Amino acid sequence: MDSSPQLRPLVQAMADQDPTKLPTPSSCIADFCLVPIGTPTASVSKEVASVQRLLKRSGIQYSMHSAGTTIEGTWEDCMRIIGQCHTMLHANGVVRIQSDIRVGSRTDKKQTSDDKVAAVNKLLAEDR
Amino acid sequence: MDSSPQLRPLVQAMADQDPTKLPTPSSCIADFCLVPIGTPTASVSKEVASVQRLLKRSGIQYSMHSAGTTIEGTWEDCMRIIGQCHTMLHANGVVRIQSDIRVGSRTDKKQTSDDKVAAVNKLLAEDR
Amino acid sequence: MDSSPQLRPLVQAMADQDPTKLPTPSSCIADFCLVPIGTPTASVSKEVASVQRLLKRSGIQYSMHSAGTTIEGTWEDCMRIIGQCHTMLHANGVVRIQSDIRVGSRTDKKQTSDDKVAAVNKLLAEDR
Amino acid sequence: MDSSPQLRPLVQAMADQDPTKLPTPSSCIADFCLVPIGTPTASVSKEVASVQRLLKRSGIQYSMHSAGTTIEGTWEDCMRIIGQCHTMLHANGVVRIQSDIRVGSRTDKKQTSDDKVAAVNKLLAEDR
Repeated sequence: MDSSPQLRPLVQAMADQDPTKLPTPSSCIADFCLVPIGTPTASVSKEVASVQRLLKRSGIQYSMHSAGTTIEGTWEDCMRIIGQCHTMLHANGVVRIQSDIRVGSRTDKKQTSDDKVAAVNKLLAEDR
Repeated sequence: MDSSPQLRPLVQAMADQDPTKLPTPSSCIADFCLVPIGTPTASVSKEVASVQRLLKRSGIQYSMHSAGTTIEGTWEDCMRIIGQCHTMLHANGVVRIQSDIRVGSRTDKKQTSDDKVAAVNKLLAEDR
Repeated sequence: MDSSPQLRPLVQAMADQDPTKLPTPSSCIADFCLVPIGTPTASVSKEVASVQRLLKRSGIQYSMHSAGTTIEGTWEDCMRIIGQCHTMLHANGVVRIQSDIRVGSRTDKKQTSDDKVAAVNKLLAEDR
Repeated sequence: MDSSPQLRPLVQAMADQDPTKLPTPSSCIADFCLVPIGTPTASVSKEVASVQRLLKRSGIQYSMHSAGTTIEGTWEDCMRIIGQCHTMLHANGVVRIQSDIRVGSRTDKKQTSDDKVAAVNKLLAEDR
């Protein structure tokens, strides 16, 4: 939902009346792992590097790790950008692409990916 | 890419010049598993049923199985609908939702989810 | 946990004392989607068919759908079998494999994958 | 496979004869995101912290990021440890847990998670 308190009754009414008219979440954290299929080599670093360049250019908040890349923004922006990564690699000759996306949204508080890691590290720090 | 042969040089030029302006794939198969977090019970069937009702209403091609729901359409439609599922459940009081999405696109041929299963079953049938 | 009521205090003590000695869940439902990387073609049906043959031979409960295959059994059996699928395909010449596994375990009740689908369909049937 | 060259013909024969007798991969990289279901709050940091403590104690190579935790070792060790995380949280009262695991194995070379990130960063460094 993510909507301001004033909009909530409206969103709830839409959810009941016609959920296909609802907006998508105004913020989410999406972690995606993109796998090209049918490429000549088992290496995917060239494709992943292209993805990082697109993300940098897009201006979205992003962070690469060894098992994927985490992006943060509106649902629409995050999903459009991942789709553009598919289109870009198709244009570069990759005929088939499979991505795994873990995406979370919440309405109880604003939370960045850094906040998530900090919350766990705070608990671990108390062990000492 | 999925673009017509005439459009391909244009898409390739965009992929090189500014991939953030690219369109998203014109077709994809997306399988998603949505998990509500912080709900009073461990049952998720109520939420999954709401998702199925939204999908039915949306007119998108969909098929539920025990580990998720597969939808087929344009990238934009598939991802918007999954986002609307998040918004709908948030409106219904679920404060946090995590989804896993497996999404594939290919440019070498049109392939539906039924085609994928049929291709495997054809190979298995030859065993007999 | 899945342990009998008599064993629960023991398992809880182990979880506190040394969780690395704990058993794995006695039952789970695992849905996996296996992707070969660096193969000559974009088709994966040959590999998926091999996986189905292995599953049939293993005796585990399994069900293929267009976005993966769902298996049910002990955690140890499910994960060993998915690992054997990797080894088998490596032996057949696939040098790199990426799988996405969605795995769930619960202690509040026994639930098969068929039960999960039936629970949702029961709710949907009440709409009529 | 990951097997030494001398063992390869044996593994291939087993893959053909009875793949259910095959070993699991001797090395893999597994990234998992664990989600507790039916917990009183939408926060999962307590559960994730418990997982980190178990991983530390296990001696396995691990690295947490905002969307999951990456572990490296034999297939058997990685999957047993993730299963022990489920059992531990069940013992702590979480009745249902859903994990998403991205796991990769390859036979063409040894590659750590750090190697994967370094390979991409090397390509990106050449842009400058």
